Amino acid sequence: MEIIRHEVDKDADPAALVYTFGGAEPVRSLRPGTIVSTWTADCYGGRVRRAQDLATEVTDTRFINPQTGPFHIEGAEPGDTIAVHFCSITPSVDWGVSTTMPLFGALTQTPFTAMLHDPLPERTWIYDLDVAERLVRYHALDSDLTVDLPMDPMHGTVGVAPALGEVRSSLTPGSWGGNMDTPEMRAGTTCYLGVNVPGALLSLGDGHARQGEGETCGVAVETAMDTVFAVELIKGIATPWPRLEDDRFIMSTGSTRPLEDAFRISHADLVHWIAGGLGLSAMDAYQLVSQTALTPVANVCDENYTVVGKVLKDHLPGFEAYGGTHHRLRSLARAAGV
Amino acid sequence: MEIIRHEVDKDADPAALVYTFGGAEPVRSLRPGTIVSTWTADCYGGRVRRAQDLATEVTDTRFINPQTGPFHIEGAEPGDTIAVHFCSITPSVDWGVSTTMPLFGALTQTPFTAMLHDPLPERTWIYDLDVAERLVRYHALDSDLTVDLPMDPMHGTVGVAPALGEVRSSLTPGSWGGNMDTPEMRAGTTCYLGVNVPGALLSLGDGHARQGEGETCGVAVETAMDTVFAVELIKGIATPWPRLEDDRFIMSTGSTRPLEDAFRISHADLVHWIAGGLGLSAMDAYQLVSQTALTPVANVCDENYTVVGKVLKDHLPGFEAYGGTHHRLRSLARAAGV
Amino acid sequence: MEIIRHEVDKDADPAALVYTFGGAEPVRSLRPGTIVSTWTADCYGGRVRRAQDLATEVTDTRFINPQTGPFHIEGAEPGDTIAVHFCSITPSVDWGVSTTMPLFGALTQTPFTAMLHDPLPERTWIYDLDVAERLVRYHALDSDLTVDLPMDPMHGTVGVAPALGEVRSSLTPGSWGGNMDTPEMRAGTTCYLGVNVPGALLSLGDGHARQGEGETCGVAVETAMDTVFAVELIKGIATPWPRLEDDRFIMSTGSTRPLEDAFRISHADLVHWIAGGLGLSAMDAYQLVSQTALTPVANVCDENYTVVGKVLKDHLPGFEAYGGTHHRLRSLARAAGV
Amino acid sequence: MEIIRHEVDKDADPAALVYTFGGAEPVRSLRPGTIVSTWTADCYGGRVRRAQDLATEVTDTRFINPQTGPFHIEGAEPGDTIAVHFCSITPSVDWGVSTTMPLFGALTQTPFTAMLHDPLPERTWIYDLDVAERLVRYHALDSDLTVDLPMDPMHGTVGVAPALGEVRSSLTPGSWGGNMDTPEMRAGTTCYLGVNVPGALLSLGDGHARQGEGETCGVAVETAMDTVFAVELIKGIATPWPRLEDDRFIMSTGSTRPLEDAFRISHADLVHWIAGGLGLSAMDAYQLVSQTALTPVANVCDENYTVVGKVLKDHLPGFEAYGGTHHRLRSLARAAGV
Repeated sequence: MEIIRHEVDKDADPAALVYTFGGAEPVRSLRPGTIVSTWTADCYGGRVRRAQDLATEVTDTRFINPQTGPFHIEGAEPGDTIAVHFCSITPSVDWGVSTTMPLFGALTQTPFTAMLHDPLPERTWIYDLDVAERLVRYHALDSDLTVDLPMDPMHGTVGVAPALGEVRSSLTPGSWGGNMDTPEMRAGTTCYLGVNVPGALLSLGDGHARQGEGETCGVAVETAMDTVFAVELIKGIATPWPRLEDDRFIMSTGSTRPLEDAFRISHADLVHWIAGGLGLSAMDAYQLVSQTALTPVANVCDENYTVVGKVLKDHLPGFEAYGGTHHRLRSLARAAGV
Repeated sequence: MEIIRHEVDKDADPAALVYTFGGAEPVRSLRPGTIVSTWTADCYGGRVRRAQDLATEVTDTRFINPQTGPFHIEGAEPGDTIAVHFCSITPSVDWGVSTTMPLFGALTQTPFTAMLHDPLPERTWIYDLDVAERLVRYHALDSDLTVDLPMDPMHGTVGVAPALGEVRSSLTPGSWGGNMDTPEMRAGTTCYLGVNVPGALLSLGDGHARQGEGETCGVAVETAMDTVFAVELIKGIATPWPRLEDDRFIMSTGSTRPLEDAFRISHADLVHWIAGGLGLSAMDAYQLVSQTALTPVANVCDENYTVVGKVLKDHLPGFEAYGGTHHRLRSLARAAGV
Repeated sequence: MEIIRHEVDKDADPAALVYTFGGAEPVRSLRPGTIVSTWTADCYGGRVRRAQDLATEVTDTRFINPQTGPFHIEGAEPGDTIAVHFCSITPSVDWGVSTTMPLFGALTQTPFTAMLHDPLPERTWIYDLDVAERLVRYHALDSDLTVDLPMDPMHGTVGVAPALGEVRSSLTPGSWGGNMDTPEMRAGTTCYLGVNVPGALLSLGDGHARQGEGETCGVAVETAMDTVFAVELIKGIATPWPRLEDDRFIMSTGSTRPLEDAFRISHADLVHWIAGGLGLSAMDAYQLVSQTALTPVANVCDENYTVVGKVLKDHLPGFEAYGGTHHRLRSLARAAGV
Repeated sequence: MEIIRHEVDKDADPAALVYTFGGAEPVRSLRPGTIVSTWTADCYGGRVRRAQDLATEVTDTRFINPQTGPFHIEGAEPGDTIAVHFCSITPSVDWGVSTTMPLFGALTQTPFTAMLHDPLPERTWIYDLDVAERLVRYHALDSDLTVDLPMDPMHGTVGVAPALGEVRSSLTPGSWGGNMDTPEMRAGTTCYLGVNVPGALLSLGDGHARQGEGETCGVAVETAMDTVFAVELIKGIATPWPRLEDDRFIMSTGSTRPLEDAFRISHADLVHWIAGGLGLSAMDAYQLVSQTALTPVANVCDENYTVVGKVLKDHLPGFEAYGGTHHRLRSLARAAGV
């Protein structure tokens, strides 16, 4: 595979960056079968660095969650699928940041779950990152507790331009991918995204050194990332909602509200995907999913909530997703030494 | 600990069994610190045995999900908590059953999510259970596929009498426990339940040889169970929503609709529980939960939906739940050879 | 029709009253075709009388929303329907009360929509009621504003014993009726309730001098009521969710969460009811409902939320609900001078 | 006021029309204080005309709900509000159309409320419109019933470009307005919309000869409209969610999922709006709204659901919205004879 280095200006003016899926000109064209090595800014563009920094004071909140891209995938047309395989995702700095932000998060009123409370306090936590030891160190602000957590780097955001001419904020997930905020989007995972516009217009960002399932306070351990990914094009197969695959699992995502509808999307997609892949009737696939699915919540804080439904490939004898794309990309990436 | 054998009449008239939490006279009084060995019927009372048996035909649907109990826990008063530790949960027969039932499940209209579709087909799947090999064998109905799945026995239902004089169907989960349908309720887990009435009135049932997270079609691999549990009483500590603990995790459950509110209940409870246990401020605990919680969906099919939020005890240095009750019960059960 | 006076002890011990649907012995047996004149306490049992009285201080919150009844309706069996026609609903005192209560209401976190905010302030508003002028006078607490609002007396709560042996708090609405909190439950309205247990076990209470649609803060203008109602029995016709009828409208209610499912219940019921009544296909009835339904929200504060779907009888030529029961009860009540 | 005739090409290629809020160049610039007389296509662009026409066959479903506009409002800047007063809305043809569409509507599975049912049948109903008599005639498809319904013309869709650089489909409502589908958007109503981009970029369309509250099947009595509206600019006042005003009511809208959050948005906005307008404390306004709000559901079929909260101005002594803009526009329009 061809390996490309895509440089990003780490000192760019925030207003010059891309904060949407759709609506931006591609920064580069990629041939299917390319490996890209690049960098993504943290969701605050590096501007929240100390516990004293409040995100609403040191950033322009119109400019949160900048994306690297979009990349034009050559030959991608509506009705196709692109596969994005994450070869490596590595924090590029030795610190991460999380915050609470007024009216954002799962355990606070928001502009959508509107209430009459005063906002929760805005606070900032700085984490130490140790890439060599793969540790993420939490420091309590109001007492002395320190906890070392395993590093598990991932991208909160990966997606393409939406359908129907829509342009969506990089803070929102949906059928185009976007801000799904699932820890499953780690190195070793392949993400399948349906193509809605010519060239697909792939972007990614929002690196997390780790996050809990649900991203409860709305903000993970945010950090800039050095990321290597491979991209492939699957012609003539549509993918209505983002799917993921790693060596052990196939996964379907749903992103909407209420959360049970996100569950329904992901599990109905699993049923149809598995029925097709194993030649099962829909009712037999419904039964098999009912007894085998794992269902980790991804986010309950974004404009749409995300649920992941996943099934061990061991439970699906003979199942092969997208003609073995994940396996092929994984092998090629290894052969390329990335 | 005292070990008691509680016999259940396996041939009882279905109309004579207990299908509610609250509203039934206790069958036996248990001293705290007792180990009970008993049996629970499957949710259909053993009446759905073959693929030709349709649940709506061979059962009286007023009598689904019979419970063993209720047990009166001596000394339990409103404001206390009881701990139920599952020593072993073992299928007592070599078969399990799952079905689809009209207007029940996550991917069908229901009496609550009312629509104008015809019901999905009613079907019955019989599973082979191999306790020695810990295998659950799935057979597709409409094609030849057979899949061996790991056995992971659990109770869908464990609970006490509700507050406010309510009596709730054993098909529904809530703050009293009940039909939470989480695979976490396996041997090795301790379940903490807040006491609402004198004696608590503990019941359990709804054994599953395994289930997927979400119990998508509404019915797991249902089977009769030989179960051994230990019960303890924790005076003066209230537990608003059921909590679980095993050797590795603490867990909070939420059961309501919509599913995001079940998430909110479980995660807010984790925040308060961990803040109290580690002496953290609420905001520091919110932050720690946000980066560490795992959040498996339990059920999206019952009258209330259930979410489990769980945190590794390794991430909570010095945290001890309920004065070490789980560890003590686990040790005592082992000492008793159960 | 026979007219019966059912006296209620206005000075009863709160702990002696009935706070559930189901779970209580009938206080009286009523022959179908009876008119009953009785009294209902306000939801606080008269114990919150001044702006300084806080509900959580002057009441035992286990004892909120006492019901008058239950009445055993002679001959009522599961599968039947009872009709309750409200002849008159009149405040029996010259004051009403509303409050905010911690963790209760639509614009605050609650035990179900769990968050990390401090509770909103607990406040009490006393209203002047003028039955002769049919006015309800609001007084702002923190400034001088006074507003006269039209009196529109109604019962928040009317229902029967639930199915499946359940007993439900009088604070909760559902398929059994209960705390639906719709302003449509005014004098002149007939409420149809499906019977789940022999005798139906009808109760009512929770009088409101008026309320907004949604009962936003969770508490209407609560007051004791002198109420006259007629009860009828409709044999052999089941009513899955409470329906209402007045001289102009038929109405279907749904009570569950999320609110769109309450909508779905009420509108699906309208479709089936109208299809049956007019001999329309389901799709034709769906279309007619889509263009004619009014859909006032009832409550968004109780454990289940309630939506009312209603259609003008003028738009349903030839439609007659339950064999003209509403018209007959209305006429008989007028003839009886009530 | 200046009166402008804005012509629309009724025979334009569907692909050339505008189907989004945001993302389109303005077709014309309007000075605040202008009255515009124009035309809007029906949601199917006139291509579904007979009961035999199925929307999915005779239209390109990428091109549904074309908008007239966008209009650039001179001087409008983010943080301002524009007022759109509807002087008249009149069907321009003598027929309207409604349909069911697969996987769209409140009582069917959808791509978001994903299930395993077959889609409901696709059907088309043609209505006769009589503007002089103000009648809308329904014809059942599967039997002989005909019903005359009052004409109540309105626009399902009116909105501006969204914030954060988003572009949203004209099928979706939100904080920018869009496809709110409330019958309140009739002649005599003023709609207040917050400005997110310079010039606001106002569009409107989706005329309905009438609709039920909830737009249950997803499609109202769709028709082309001759519409006259006046537009005004209110500098320096932001409007977070669309508000409406007519001679009797002020109204706040919320559009999101689940439906209770749409309720919360509209009622929280009423609380803040009324508190500000009457100088009430938030708790006093919460109380007043709780006893006075009417809450008609608008739509439960679009990507976001819409609820309207409304309060009679008679109950708000001294309240004046936006400095009397509604009254002024209404008077000027009358003076202009439109």
